[in-house]
Amino acid sequence: MSDWLNEVPWDKDGLVPVITQDYSSGRVLTLAWMNREALAESAASGQAVYWSRSRKKLWKKGEESGHFQKVHEIRVDCDEDVVLLNVEQVGGIACHTGRHNCFFQKYENGAWVETDPVIKAPSEIYK
Amino acid sequence: MSDWLNEVPWDKDGLVPVITQDYSSGRVLTLAWMNREALAESAASGQAVYWSRSRKKLWKKGEESGHFQKVHEIRVDCDEDVVLLNVEQVGGIACHTGRHNCFFQKYENGAWVETDPVIKAPSEIYK
Repeated sequence: MSDWLNEVPWDKDGLVPVITQDYSSGRVLTLAWMNREALAESAASGQAVYWSRSRKKLWKKGEESGHFQKVHEIRVDCDEDVVLLNVEQVGGIACHTGRHNCFFQKYENGAWVETDPVIKAPSEIYK
Repeated sequence: MSDWLNEVPWDKDGLVPVITQDYSSGRVLTLAWMNREALAESAASGQAVYWSRSRKKLWKKGEESGHFQKVHEIRVDCDEDVVLLNVEQVGGIACHTGRHNCFFQKYENGAWVETDPVIKAPSEIYK
């Protein structure tokens, strides 16, 4: 049953990049990382679990904010070295800035311009 | 005018990961990499240009296959260390296997299962 985990060519740190997409809006939410345990747990529990590179530990998305991600689908690319997660984003907020997703800055005429609103202030989310 | 390029914290190899999404279908096509020159050229030319890590050179997507990508939108995430490109995929084929996108394998009951058809055989694309 763990053959599918062995097919992923884990990098030198034992990680794989994970693109997470919102199932209903189709918007790309985040790019994060998983180790073997995080991918196995995401598949088994149906809730997104990543590897926090800064905190060096498993990170169940939403454990502090309540904005969990229900896994709808897990895909892997042709080289099997990138994972694509389709999720239902609880609360509609994936970014720590309180926005729907992390890609809220758009290139316009030589500058990055903020285009997406803060849905909930971080001070309200992380108490 | 190049301040926006300086805002990207290029990694030790001078690269940034780039998620490319199809503008019309909303499907995630690929995860690739850009250096400073590739990002500048993608913005200036309106055609996606990446950095090939295997060939160690600029790689204009579609230069061999004819499947160019017309840049619709360029976004950057909250940390400005991931780029999201929204493109019109010429020919509807982004993957070197001849499929619409690279994420054609889906996790099902402990295995990766191919779900998306080959639109055009690679031998027909790369002559």
